[in-house]
Amino acid sequence: MTTPISERLDDLDEARDSGRRKMDWAIQHMPICGALREQFEADQPFDGERIGMAMHVEAKTAVLTEILAAGGAEVAITGCNPLSTHDDVSAALDAVDGVTSYAERGVDDEEYYAAIEAVIDHEPTITVDDGMDLVAAIHEDYPELIDTIIGGAEETTTGVHRLRAMDEDGELDYPVFAVNDTPMKRLFDNVHGTGESSLASIAMTTNLSWAGKTVVVSGYGDCGKGVAKKASGQNADVIVTEVEPRRALEAHMEGYEVKPMAEAAAEGDVFITTTGNRDVIVEEHFETMQDGVLLANAGHFDVEVDLDALSDLAVDTYAARDGVQTYEMADGRRLNVLAEGRLVNLATPIALGHPVEVMDQSFGVQAVCVRELVENGDDYEAGVHAVPDRLDKEVAEIKLDAEGVDFDSLTDTQAEYMDSWQHGT
Amino acid sequence: MTTPISERLDDLDEARDSGRRKMDWAIQHMPICGALREQFEADQPFDGERIGMAMHVEAKTAVLTEILAAGGAEVAITGCNPLSTHDDVSAALDAVDGVTSYAERGVDDEEYYAAIEAVIDHEPTITVDDGMDLVAAIHEDYPELIDTIIGGAEETTTGVHRLRAMDEDGELDYPVFAVNDTPMKRLFDNVHGTGESSLASIAMTTNLSWAGKTVVVSGYGDCGKGVAKKASGQNADVIVTEVEPRRALEAHMEGYEVKPMAEAAAEGDVFITTTGNRDVIVEEHFETMQDGVLLANAGHFDVEVDLDALSDLAVDTYAARDGVQTYEMADGRRLNVLAEGRLVNLATPIALGHPVEVMDQSFGVQAVCVRELVENGDDYEAGVHAVPDRLDKEVAEIKLDAEGVDFDSLTDTQAEYMDSWQHGT
Amino acid sequence: MTTPISERLDDLDEARDSGRRKMDWAIQHMPICGALREQFEADQPFDGERIGMAMHVEAKTAVLTEILAAGGAEVAITGCNPLSTHDDVSAALDAVDGVTSYAERGVDDEEYYAAIEAVIDHEPTITVDDGMDLVAAIHEDYPELIDTIIGGAEETTTGVHRLRAMDEDGELDYPVFAVNDTPMKRLFDNVHGTGESSLASIAMTTNLSWAGKTVVVSGYGDCGKGVAKKASGQNADVIVTEVEPRRALEAHMEGYEVKPMAEAAAEGDVFITTTGNRDVIVEEHFETMQDGVLLANAGHFDVEVDLDALSDLAVDTYAARDGVQTYEMADGRRLNVLAEGRLVNLATPIALGHPVEVMDQSFGVQAVCVRELVENGDDYEAGVHAVPDRLDKEVAEIKLDAEGVDFDSLTDTQAEYMDSWQHGT
Amino acid sequence: MTTPISERLDDLDEARDSGRRKMDWAIQHMPICGALREQFEADQPFDGERIGMAMHVEAKTAVLTEILAAGGAEVAITGCNPLSTHDDVSAALDAVDGVTSYAERGVDDEEYYAAIEAVIDHEPTITVDDGMDLVAAIHEDYPELIDTIIGGAEETTTGVHRLRAMDEDGELDYPVFAVNDTPMKRLFDNVHGTGESSLASIAMTTNLSWAGKTVVVSGYGDCGKGVAKKASGQNADVIVTEVEPRRALEAHMEGYEVKPMAEAAAEGDVFITTTGNRDVIVEEHFETMQDGVLLANAGHFDVEVDLDALSDLAVDTYAARDGVQTYEMADGRRLNVLAEGRLVNLATPIALGHPVEVMDQSFGVQAVCVRELVENGDDYEAGVHAVPDRLDKEVAEIKLDAEGVDFDSLTDTQAEYMDSWQHGT
Repeated sequence: MTTPISERLDDLDEARDSGRRKMDWAIQHMPICGALREQFEADQPFDGERIGMAMHVEAKTAVLTEILAAGGAEVAITGCNPLSTHDDVSAALDAVDGVTSYAERGVDDEEYYAAIEAVIDHEPTITVDDGMDLVAAIHEDYPELIDTIIGGAEETTTGVHRLRAMDEDGELDYPVFAVNDTPMKRLFDNVHGTGESSLASIAMTTNLSWAGKTVVVSGYGDCGKGVAKKASGQNADVIVTEVEPRRALEAHMEGYEVKPMAEAAAEGDVFITTTGNRDVIVEEHFETMQDGVLLANAGHFDVEVDLDALSDLAVDTYAARDGVQTYEMADGRRLNVLAEGRLVNLATPIALGHPVEVMDQSFGVQAVCVRELVENGDDYEAGVHAVPDRLDKEVAEIKLDAEGVDFDSLTDTQAEYMDSWQHGT
Repeated sequence: MTTPISERLDDLDEARDSGRRKMDWAIQHMPICGALREQFEADQPFDGERIGMAMHVEAKTAVLTEILAAGGAEVAITGCNPLSTHDDVSAALDAVDGVTSYAERGVDDEEYYAAIEAVIDHEPTITVDDGMDLVAAIHEDYPELIDTIIGGAEETTTGVHRLRAMDEDGELDYPVFAVNDTPMKRLFDNVHGTGESSLASIAMTTNLSWAGKTVVVSGYGDCGKGVAKKASGQNADVIVTEVEPRRALEAHMEGYEVKPMAEAAAEGDVFITTTGNRDVIVEEHFETMQDGVLLANAGHFDVEVDLDALSDLAVDTYAARDGVQTYEMADGRRLNVLAEGRLVNLATPIALGHPVEVMDQSFGVQAVCVRELVENGDDYEAGVHAVPDRLDKEVAEIKLDAEGVDFDSLTDTQAEYMDSWQHGT
Repeated sequence: MTTPISERLDDLDEARDSGRRKMDWAIQHMPICGALREQFEADQPFDGERIGMAMHVEAKTAVLTEILAAGGAEVAITGCNPLSTHDDVSAALDAVDGVTSYAERGVDDEEYYAAIEAVIDHEPTITVDDGMDLVAAIHEDYPELIDTIIGGAEETTTGVHRLRAMDEDGELDYPVFAVNDTPMKRLFDNVHGTGESSLASIAMTTNLSWAGKTVVVSGYGDCGKGVAKKASGQNADVIVTEVEPRRALEAHMEGYEVKPMAEAAAEGDVFITTTGNRDVIVEEHFETMQDGVLLANAGHFDVEVDLDALSDLAVDTYAARDGVQTYEMADGRRLNVLAEGRLVNLATPIALGHPVEVMDQSFGVQAVCVRELVENGDDYEAGVHAVPDRLDKEVAEIKLDAEGVDFDSLTDTQAEYMDSWQHGT
Repeated sequence: MTTPISERLDDLDEARDSGRRKMDWAIQHMPICGALREQFEADQPFDGERIGMAMHVEAKTAVLTEILAAGGAEVAITGCNPLSTHDDVSAALDAVDGVTSYAERGVDDEEYYAAIEAVIDHEPTITVDDGMDLVAAIHEDYPELIDTIIGGAEETTTGVHRLRAMDEDGELDYPVFAVNDTPMKRLFDNVHGTGESSLASIAMTTNLSWAGKTVVVSGYGDCGKGVAKKASGQNADVIVTEVEPRRALEAHMEGYEVKPMAEAAAEGDVFITTTGNRDVIVEEHFETMQDGVLLANAGHFDVEVDLDALSDLAVDTYAARDGVQTYEMADGRRLNVLAEGRLVNLATPIALGHPVEVMDQSFGVQAVCVRELVENGDDYEAGVHAVPDRLDKEVAEIKLDAEGVDFDSLTDTQAEYMDSWQHGT
């Protein structure tokens, strides 16, 4: 069992000031969470609930955590990736009334899981996950808690994928909202968020440019689409690798080259994996890559690039820059791995995670899903649930209102027309 | 009751030669239909079936029609829009063994519906629609045929929308595949097909350019996304109007301006409607538009621009060019309507409809759906059905193979990983 | 010697009505020429001058011709390409007071040059060329006229290139403005005009789409940049071929693939030449091309694709569509040539040439250049001259004013700052 | 007089290691400089020369400095901006044989100019500037050195602008190459380099995203074009402000909105100035801006945003993040200034300056210009000189060769054709 971060930091006051300053900046650019905070403070919907969270603990997540606490919940939080925690934010969060934070950067595996158990020890009635670590740990090791859990919400593609597999096996014992699958989440977080922040993180970690580069994007799901689109928008030449024929065709029709990795490996200058799968770039690919290539991962887990095989191939390895590990091959070629193959937009030294506004949208959906569990939890059986349309629309409307974007509404005649089918050509 | 086109044309041989030449060009660029034709000729899956079709009768549709006949079916076809029929293609099709074509360009309402009835008179066992005219007519006027109908396939957004409304009312009495809703159809046909062909048709009808133009796109569904994207790709400045908050937000996040039509009307140089709804551009909008604007519709029906109101406002109206009707306002402003407000990529004099390759994909899905009805029709209850994933994937694979695009496949380890959920961070 | 078009047409009245209607549409979208016409009508700057023109005779050029006549000139015009003349516009122009038009579509070489001589027979004091045919003919065959010629203006890249070569040889004996080289001409006409109209013409002639196509663009000058950019904006995958290293590098840095034609030939679906040079696509390339490729030229002369070599290779050739000639190889591959290798945005049956607004800008520069020759012709020695900046800016300001685009102006402090160099860091 | 950096740093060894590591990374991605280094080491073209440099002292510039020293020169260098120096790189450079570095981050004005004088004290025979500080100081205070100076090279738009003003006043007394004006420099450095690095620096300093943002770009020169293009490529909605009508029109035709700053101020979310002029954003604009806007400068000097006026308006000011100073208005609006209004891609805490590869091209041109001065300096009179085409092409060819990009070359027939003007239509 671990202790809250505040008991472990040396310069606690300084850390809290620094973390609070980051949170203040975030909330300035999170109008959806700002509007929901006002609503939650007034209504206290979470009064009496205990919320367990395992997410990337940095400024934006902290804002979500804080507004849940502001709505009356007791919140316990830890990280969902050992390298993505900002200790100062974790400390500032731990100082918030109603919040306990166990997250600490750079912990080892044992400490990582101890922190998850510390959160579970709060006996949460609601879980909020980014990668389903809480759901998995509760089902495996603390099944006795499930009876008192109203439900959960899951942030990522990978988490939802794993939850569905669990659900299909009949092993998911409480309802979980697939926040990842809403338009609000997928389009903005995955496409714009992952796309922009991955590229900016790579550029600022390496001081390299995109113009004229051949960028190999593995996976053409929402994250891959975002990375490909934004890289192309910086004048890179994009090659896509895929395993699903319709996605491969979609990428081809978008104007990208589609190739097997076995061919793309020799052509790429930068490789960005977004598949959520393992062994996307492996030994046979390393062997044909050019000198100086960059290898980065934008998928949830660090299994897409086979670093073990790369280590075995290398005759030397060293840190070329902060966040860049160079593997030198016997023939002199240097292959540069960013952020140890972990999420490149979260795990490089200067990385800040997804952009603030994008997370505002995701977390807006998270927040209304938690509210929905409290208000209507009985309506949902155990299993994975799509976020109800009305919640998703509510968040979109809050955002448009905050951005000052006005749009049309259907007239009665139009609404009627859309519902009818008797009219002719 | 009407007669086949061949009995009505003067220069039948010349028409058939011309139509055949158009079909030869199309099939040269329709590799999916080409591959399916070989399959159908060998297997004769449609032997004994009668297929009724109401679609835009031009070269690409003719290729679909012909491969269904090549698979053993007796096919009767008519148009689904009085202005989109190419008489020469209709004649060439009518000459194909097993095909009867009733489609003729420029028929009036009475003749249009008479041709639909002529098709129904063949007592089809399968219907293939683009706008659900056949389904509607059979349900309204020939309910006695429904017992012997295996099912149908519907091509368009609008048709599917109407079918769903009908289905929800419990009034759809046989199974219909929503071809429109497959990725293969929506992404390529709606986004790329409608987008490219609408813009090319407008440019070549008016001799005007896109660079620097303000283009107002109404509706940000798949067609609207395509039109906006392709217009932006020609250096137009795009404004989007929408009624659904998530689509409005999606357009905003893409970098487009989103405004109510009441504001956009005064700013646009070109207006393109893609909503599938009526009264999108009405009197109050005409009153604020600039001199010289273009008004075009890329939605299924000609009800998006209120031409009656425009006629009432105009002090004079004349054909400025083939396919362009100018309405002159009392204050001298000239508002130019393309293709009488009908589908601008089908109904201008030079319009050719969707690009050949794009239709190859849609029609590939249509063809395998018809095959599915014959092979497994009993599996489908009355109502609207999604196209099974395996059919959609089959078509994607045929296309990629034809384009020479190679792609990856999952290893066993990867497939297993994607199905598991027990692994950790 | 030839006669004016009006003496050669059968249905003269109908032709004139049709041509006039096309000109009316053009002038509606040519605000620069509209503003200059008002100026010229008031000032009569060309009173007493004879202007000889050899240009593509269609609606937009006709507007330029007409405003020069409106300014007091006697104008004689003929075509600069046998396939680009619209006879109806030629006839309508010939009916304009002060204008004689000799241009006729489809004339043979002898008639073509006879028409040029007919224009020269008017003893022009100013020449306006698109391809320097008039300048060449006068220098070669009518040198006695040079003494009374004030100067000329040349529209195209190719014409300016040839004039410079002539100038360097000391053989250009009167001043000619290189209208092509102004920002107003090059950016808008070459980039946007050639780019958009070439693609639209190809799409509407073939009914094919760009999405997913591999488009090989030969030459990365302004026209090539436009074609590449607009094709990419329609989701094509663009390959560029070049002979100049800096242009090759520029294309590479833009994100395009750069390859020798010997490699690109086997990969392209569509080939568009824009080099202004000959023998860009030759026998060795035809031999490796895929079945069904399109070959189009957007450069001034029809020498970029070696059609003689293609004819020699072909075992059969036939018109697949209007504007598309198919050459069938011994191995069954079909290579489709558009517009006989002539300018694809001018010479296909449905082609309309550059977009109206783009030509408005080019012709605005032409018009003020002609005015400059009349007003300050003595200031210019024999040779090629850049268009003075003030003229180019004048046209830009007229255009922005017409478009309702407002922009900033320098304050006195700013202007002073820009002129100073003493200020520190 | 100041002393070399090595005499002023505490942890000199650590700094040198860190700086050397940065330089190693840079040279790995600078193939042009790598190829030139080999050439220079073999030929020793700079033997006996003293080169004075005032440039941003970070890893890439260090590579240029080092290859000049490798070619035999004695090099003295200082910074051209007090905030852009990396002390570790400066120290590593100072340790290179033949190089003395005076650059130190954060020096005050007096120290800044003392360091420039220290460089001049080496009595350079060649100057290499980024902002013409050396040229200015030598002409103003050390005119006696001019006789022995062969010439100079200037890197930036702003520096060249000031040099031309000086030249026009007859006050530039030795030849200077306008490196900035070559295609190799302008397109890649200004467009791609400034564009990409400014946006990445802003994104990573603020953790904000571009999608859906309204970005106001002031100035549509090469830097402005790059910023606008790359911002648009990240799905921002771009507004351009300009004072030159042709540039304003060019931006309009590209599809951007063009407005006066007085209008744009109220609409922008992010403002990026690239004009090279002063007072671009001033009091009247601050007054109408929205809460939370970002103000950044990508022009050479920190005079584009009027920070004095902003300070006067503000009721409070504080550091919201590293590199972000917030000015709070009386009405509560917060205006956030990045990098104190200095170059945003150089002067934020995490900024790394232009991308490595882009600087490789600029510095390749610099290096061959310095070689040209040594080899053919007598051919150039005092004044600003364009970089000879052959040098620029040489660098392009080295780059393409390094990237493995092959391209075509003219055949004899083609070369002859391009030089001829007698051929007909």
